Amino acid sequence: MTVVAVGTLAFDSIETPYDRREDALGGSATYFAYAASFFTPVQLVGVVGKDFGAGHLADLQKRGVDTAGVEVADGKSFRWSGRYEADWNTRHTLDTQLNVFEHFDPKVPGDYRTSPYVFLANAAPDIQMKALAQCTGARFTMADTMNLWIDIARDGLLELLRKVDGVVLNDEEARLLTGERHLLRAARKVLELGPRFVVLKKGEHGAFLIGRDVHFALPAYPVDEVIDPTGAGDSFAGGFLGYLASVRNTDPRTLRRAMLYGTVTASYCVEGFSVERIGAIDRSKVESRFNELFSLVSL
Amino acid sequence: MTVVAVGTLAFDSIETPYDRREDALGGSATYFAYAASFFTPVQLVGVVGKDFGAGHLADLQKRGVDTAGVEVADGKSFRWSGRYEADWNTRHTLDTQLNVFEHFDPKVPGDYRTSPYVFLANAAPDIQMKALAQCTGARFTMADTMNLWIDIARDGLLELLRKVDGVVLNDEEARLLTGERHLLRAARKVLELGPRFVVLKKGEHGAFLIGRDVHFALPAYPVDEVIDPTGAGDSFAGGFLGYLASVRNTDPRTLRRAMLYGTVTASYCVEGFSVERIGAIDRSKVESRFNELFSLVSL
Repeated sequence: MTVVAVGTLAFDSIETPYDRREDALGGSATYFAYAASFFTPVQLVGVVGKDFGAGHLADLQKRGVDTAGVEVADGKSFRWSGRYEADWNTRHTLDTQLNVFEHFDPKVPGDYRTSPYVFLANAAPDIQMKALAQCTGARFTMADTMNLWIDIARDGLLELLRKVDGVVLNDEEARLLTGERHLLRAARKVLELGPRFVVLKKGEHGAFLIGRDVHFALPAYPVDEVIDPTGAGDSFAGGFLGYLASVRNTDPRTLRRAMLYGTVTASYCVEGFSVERIGAIDRSKVESRFNELFSLVSL
Repeated sequence: MTVVAVGTLAFDSIETPYDRREDALGGSATYFAYAASFFTPVQLVGVVGKDFGAGHLADLQKRGVDTAGVEVADGKSFRWSGRYEADWNTRHTLDTQLNVFEHFDPKVPGDYRTSPYVFLANAAPDIQMKALAQCTGARFTMADTMNLWIDIARDGLLELLRKVDGVVLNDEEARLLTGERHLLRAARKVLELGPRFVVLKKGEHGAFLIGRDVHFALPAYPVDEVIDPTGAGDSFAGGFLGYLASVRNTDPRTLRRAMLYGTVTASYCVEGFSVERIGAIDRSKVESRFNELFSLVSL
């Protein structure tokens, strides 16, 4: 089954304590698509500027990603720059230029609309809802968000949460959204807002999956060396939802396996800047690390 | 099967961002004994001062802990004071008074010496080896250590590591001991130093068990509220080794279950100052949280 992903395609400038990149390919939809396309065809909805260049889109197409839904608008592409501290968990945003994304009005192509699996990457909730409204065949939708929208667009976000099956939050977002410090209690409060399940990301410390009929805790895959954490969350979501779409199943056992696949694609993502590492591996690498992780967490 | 535990019985003065305690019962052997005694009889070896009072020893005895090996010496008991920051991972030692522990010369009572399971809590490696030499029936020995001994008594520690089956290290200690930043590689290097397995503790982020024939990663149990992390490592070791001794088995599957039990006893430990919480629960509470954790991490 195909997955529709709505989000940003962007240029990132990133500093880590060890290295840096200028104007590297980034964006939530990009990372999601790289990860999900190991498992299933992806249909991308987004907007880029004239500066984006056909090469990046061609790279995505080679991976089985349909980019017909990526509008090329007059202006510059979304740009983000940030700096990570040595603990990798502290990230400073140095600059955000929305550019063509500022007036992004998602248009989901007609042949995408029957797709049952939909990922709404982090964006203003009204943009996410505009996209979702067009996905008339959606049967399993996941959304990401961020502190900014919890702060300034809470009502819209709450409306969105009533319409999605799953939501991806980090620990800080879960606490901010619910006012509950204890992570599992926060997750349970999120379920009362609508979603069937919450994926709670704790970065290098793993992730929880808390749903009405599933509770699962997973440590992160111990990568040899983190190079750049940018995109970890979206590539987790891509592995997670891409796998679910590929097996056409969302029962608790399959959701748990999807958590492992999400962990694996995120682990490859952070082993390189941009899509340098995740774009250089094939499905067999995903499977071998999945097997390694499966064995590592088997009781 | 009984477990012999060699270590400190102490008074701790602890500050957290939320509360404080003066002269509360502490010590590595104390925490180990509280945790291990849910599973199996414990035989304690240590030294206290005249200030220790019979009450604390009587409390241990009520739990099935043999305190005949706890010498009462002239002078004051070991005292430690420390302060935790709000992240719980940053601990400042404010004061350490070795007192009677300064000249501790462990004497393992004759009827302890046949015990096959031995825990050598954090102490100078020569003290740990003196104790181990007397445990002539030891067939399964675990040791803890700390940065100080890796720095100033490395040769002694390396000698000890050749004599034990397992070692408990936190991530920082593993890196300092091996010079290897990557945790799993560090663990593998520790195995080359002698032990059959390493328990790598990452505090609230879980623990790894890395052995010649076992690799296991486990997230921490998500406690409602951390009150005081003091003793978490020793109560982990107590649950881990106490369970192994109770089932008289150390195969990979049993070692993995022991990791869950260690996680559970540590989780109760940190839910109170001193032994306030772990001393107030019974085996059924341990089992119910074990079942909860087992379900949470089952694939």
